[in-house]
Amino acid sequence: MGDLQEQLQHKIDYKTKPLGALGQLESLALQIGLVQKSLSPFLVKPTILLFAADHGIADEGVSAYPKDVTYQMVSNFLNQGAAINVFCRQNGLDLKLIDAGVDFDFGNTTGIINKKIARGTKNFLHDNAMSHSQLLECLDAGASVVKELKDEGCNVIGCGEMGIGNTSSSSMIMSCLTDIPLEKCVGRGTGLDKNGLNNKLSILQRAMAFHGPITDPMKVMETYGGFEICQMCGAMIEAYKNDMLILVDGFIATNAFLVAYKMNPQIKRNAIFCHQSDEQGHKALLDYLDVKALLDLNVRVGEGTGCALAYPLVRAAVAFLNEMDSFEEAGVSNKR
Amino acid sequence: MGDLQEQLQHKIDYKTKPLGALGQLESLALQIGLVQKSLSPFLVKPTILLFAADHGIADEGVSAYPKDVTYQMVSNFLNQGAAINVFCRQNGLDLKLIDAGVDFDFGNTTGIINKKIARGTKNFLHDNAMSHSQLLECLDAGASVVKELKDEGCNVIGCGEMGIGNTSSSSMIMSCLTDIPLEKCVGRGTGLDKNGLNNKLSILQRAMAFHGPITDPMKVMETYGGFEICQMCGAMIEAYKNDMLILVDGFIATNAFLVAYKMNPQIKRNAIFCHQSDEQGHKALLDYLDVKALLDLNVRVGEGTGCALAYPLVRAAVAFLNEMDSFEEAGVSNKR
Repeated sequence: MGDLQEQLQHKIDYKTKPLGALGQLESLALQIGLVQKSLSPFLVKPTILLFAADHGIADEGVSAYPKDVTYQMVSNFLNQGAAINVFCRQNGLDLKLIDAGVDFDFGNTTGIINKKIARGTKNFLHDNAMSHSQLLECLDAGASVVKELKDEGCNVIGCGEMGIGNTSSSSMIMSCLTDIPLEKCVGRGTGLDKNGLNNKLSILQRAMAFHGPITDPMKVMETYGGFEICQMCGAMIEAYKNDMLILVDGFIATNAFLVAYKMNPQIKRNAIFCHQSDEQGHKALLDYLDVKALLDLNVRVGEGTGCALAYPLVRAAVAFLNEMDSFEEAGVSNKR
Repeated sequence: MGDLQEQLQHKIDYKTKPLGALGQLESLALQIGLVQKSLSPFLVKPTILLFAADHGIADEGVSAYPKDVTYQMVSNFLNQGAAINVFCRQNGLDLKLIDAGVDFDFGNTTGIINKKIARGTKNFLHDNAMSHSQLLECLDAGASVVKELKDEGCNVIGCGEMGIGNTSSSSMIMSCLTDIPLEKCVGRGTGLDKNGLNNKLSILQRAMAFHGPITDPMKVMETYGGFEICQMCGAMIEAYKNDMLILVDGFIATNAFLVAYKMNPQIKRNAIFCHQSDEQGHKALLDYLDVKALLDLNVRVGEGTGCALAYPLVRAAVAFLNEMDSFEEAGVSNKR
């Protein structure tokens, strides 16, 4: 590894540009080379996995949108009308839609991968979001989707989500696993006003008091959910095992990553943090993980949109490493 | 205009996403719609104009690289081996290379647009960088390149540059036109060490003392150059006149923009600030212009690379406006 790292750094340093002048793209190129154990890495079949599920906690009015929006948005994804559809098309990514536990019967609708655990989690204000066996099912489901992609040659996945109520689960996960106070982990989600935010925070504080302190990553997932978050976590763990790149989206996806990271910090080597969401809490979480995201555009859509928007930068990192000439190749004088 | 702005905002607000959730892409979509006076804007033949020229001030050792690198890099651009070649190819932009005043005889080399004013500017430590008639030639040259592109249907240009010594010209322009002290406008350029930076600053301070205070934008360009900066300025002014979008690159290109802006502040309506360069001074300049760039990746290559890297985000802004479904179209419930 040491040798490869030196060789990659040398290749980067002798490209025809001032030393270090491609900034974050240089560290990205180095990272991708190390993950693929190659001086000439490449990207195959980049795919966004969009996991959708419902949340019992949504019954408490923690979101600005009604719960029905989860299944309605799944239909929108199927009809190619959502932001993630547009950005995937534009930037050449595949999109796989997974029903992790939406409160709607899609029957055998083409275009949905059926990994439904149940029609939504239980309300974690009074109960555990899911049982231990449901959690294990989630991790397996996420892993199985990635295994299939790996078999098709894919070496880079991004994880996105849809689920009314899922910033609430994410805030609970973040606070439990980082020890950052809940009020710094809770934000406006899809657009709560000040009163809505206060109400959300007070409900989440009650849930925290009900369950007491939890620090075990598995137990945290079981307690707060959701099915889509746990399936994302399973997908990321499987991607890591297969030396794939993991594009991490916004607040919710980063919390799925946080759980995986708490189980095995090595997974960070494979992770590319795509954007800093406008959702309060995300910056603090990225700081906790000691990473800087590629984009910071005040976007807070979810769905994997941050991954799809940042993907051209990932491609650019690989492209400069493979395609730029060195000072020697180009006959350009290096620094005096 | 008021009506169009309202209609654009309505179109943006009713897309299937939380209100405002596409952040900076939403303001970008609004801006592009207003520039093109259309609810369904489109991007045609995006082109990076790469202006290259030499600088007399380079004789004072203000750069980490020797002056020969300017013409050597022009050859590198012709051979498709530089960063800008890679990123233009990747993101579907055309690249036009303009010799604005390189100290080298390219003869009739194919692939270079010959707008050479002279083989480099004069050394502004002792002299004006160029004559008034040379400045007018520069503005005309930049404008003529854009006119030709406009005739080919292009409606979005980015301006990049290559010229050893051109951060020095840019720092002088910035300090003169913003009144920000020179030491905050001067940076390491292609990679000066601390001594090199101190030397550069002291040379530029001597030049400032020699010429005295100048606030007229035309006079500033004449005094400090360079040919590529003035041609970029001419290109931007022409693009504005033709309702084209102007992608603004890093420190040097933003100073070319600053001059145009001082002559006509309305040009800001057409400008998309693509990235915040790692060059000291650029952030202060963007703050002065009261804008936030799309990318902040610690890149400091020049050549128009920031424009080429950010271009997929510009496309994304147009794409979501044209291709996403509204709540009504998608049958998704809006906020409760």
